[in-house]
Order: sequence, then C-alpha cells, then structure tokens
Amino acid sequence: MLRIKIICVGKLKEREYMALCEEYRKRLSRFCRAEVVQLEEQRLPDRPSKAQIADALRRESELIRAVIPRGAYTVALCVEGKGMTSEAFAGVMENAGLTADTVCFLVGGSHGLDETLKREVSLRLSFSAMTFPHHLFRVMLLEQIYRAFAINSGSHYHK
Amino acid sequence: MLRIKIICVGKLKEREYMALCEEYRKRLSRFCRAEVVQLEEQRLPDRPSKAQIADALRRESELIRAVIPRGAYTVALCVEGKGMTSEAFAGVMENAGLTADTVCFLVGGSHGLDETLKREVSLRLSFSAMTFPHHLFRVMLLEQIYRAFAINSGSHYHK
Repeated sequence: MLRIKIICVGKLKEREYMALCEEYRKRLSRFCRAEVVQLEEQRLPDRPSKAQIADALRRESELIRAVIPRGAYTVALCVEGKGMTSEAFAGVMENAGLTADTVCFLVGGSHGLDETLKREVSLRLSFSAMTFPHHLFRVMLLEQIYRAFAINSGSHYHK
Repeated sequence: MLRIKIICVGKLKEREYMALCEEYRKRLSRFCRAEVVQLEEQRLPDRPSKAQIADALRRESELIRAVIPRGAYTVALCVEGKGMTSEAFAGVMENAGLTADTVCFLVGGSHGLDETLKREVSLRLSFSAMTFPHHLFRVMLLEQIYRAFAINSGSHYHK
C-alpha cells in the first residue's frame, strides 16, 4: 500500500479545519497509509529582513529533509509550480506509486519553502495562482489527494 | 458600501463547511454587504444524457438570472475561466466597485454553469485547473473575496 506523507511547516490550530483534514485522512485509509507531519515554523521578528526569512526557510528545509524517507517521490507545493487538472494529478500519483513506496508532499509556512529544497524535489506543483491560508490549503491538498486515488480507482467521487 | 452576492446552485449541508463560510461572511461585513443565495439544483437521473444536463443547466440559469440585480458586475466561476493571482483579483474587485454597486459571483452545481449564461457575464474566473467539491470551493471563494478586500484596504491579512 502506497504511503503518503504530508510534511507541513506550521501547526493547524482551528478546530473545523482539523476536523476536515481528519475526515479526508480517514477516507484516504481505503487507498493508502496517509500521515500528516507538522513541523515547527521558525520564529521571525515582526518585520523580518530577506536574509532572516531565507535563514528561517533554510532551517525549516533541514527539518523537512530529516523526515523525508529515502527514495520517496517528493512534491513541493509552490505558487510557481506546474498547474494541472485533477486527472493529470491522479496520473502523477499513479506513476509515482510505480517507482516509489512513499509520496511526500512538502507544504511551507507563511514564507513558503527554501529555494534549494525546491530544486531537489521530484515535482513542483501549484494548485492556484491565488494565495490561500495555510489551514484551508491543507484541506484542499488532502481532498485533491483523495480525489486522485478516487480517479485512479474508477470511483464515482470524481465525475 | 459594495454589495457582494454569491449565487450558488446547490445547498450546503455539511456543518463544518457552513461554519467556515459563515465565519468569512461575518468577517466580510467590515468591508461589504455580503449575501449567499442558494438555488435548488435541478434533479437529474443517475446517468443523465448530455441533453438532460444541458436542459437542467438552462433551467438553473433562469433561476440565476432572476436573482442577479440589474447593473451588477457578474463573475462566473468556471474551470475554463481566467486564472489570476489574489492581487489581480483584488484589482478586479476594486475596479468593479467603481462602476457597479453589486458584484455577483455565480457558482454552478455538479455540472457547472449554462454556456449561454457564461457568455453573458462580465468575467469568467478560474481558481484552479483542479476540480474541488462544491462545499470546499465555497469556502475558497469566500476566503478569496475576503482576501481581496483585505489587500485593497492595505490590511496585514495578505502578505
């Protein structure tokens, strides 16, 4: 069974969003072993300099790398990534599952992901040109992973 | 004060999604008079023909037109619409507010919106190439409208 590891910088606090994520995680258990790992966001002053942000992202990237299993297919979520339909994303997931036993999704904190880390991943993926809040985006990601499995299994969820 | 009217085909039933939409609607009250209108989705058989779908969409489009205020700026949400950043969307909202006193967002049901209706609107807008469920999309739309007002008011919500 494919393992899905969603590595997020920042902790979800809002009860409703936690409930929605948990619901999709439960539904995913039909298709895969899904796990959400939340890493501590590095603290920054109120008006951080570019160098302070870059340094925080670099430290976060080290925490992220430490929890990526060896040989995993890695997907970085970032606004400059490739946009695709749910069907195309389902195809990516299916292909990834042929060569890797884990697919890792990397979701940055409020300042995104480290540039070096983004160059190391298997795929840079963008859901939208628009910016969404962290908690809402996490639901969107879990739903889309669930939809991908539903598409690949021929279920009626996606029509 | 600008009026925002979100016209949706289909009713939201899920408690968590209703709570999230209501939260954004409340937050929007700082910036505008926001209203969500839910229209009945036309019933279709289990495996509808193309003609049956087109007919249902046409009937839904009549219900939608009936609740669009005269002179409103109209935005149809559809996958083939224009993608844009949150900042660009904020610009659209600001410009719309200069010429119209209402901005209407049209959100179709499970089969989308009628083709003729889509040709009549001021803007066709796409949030993503991906397909999202109706209830989740409604939260995404409300959040993005809230973000647009926050951007236009120079608030710290969007950075």
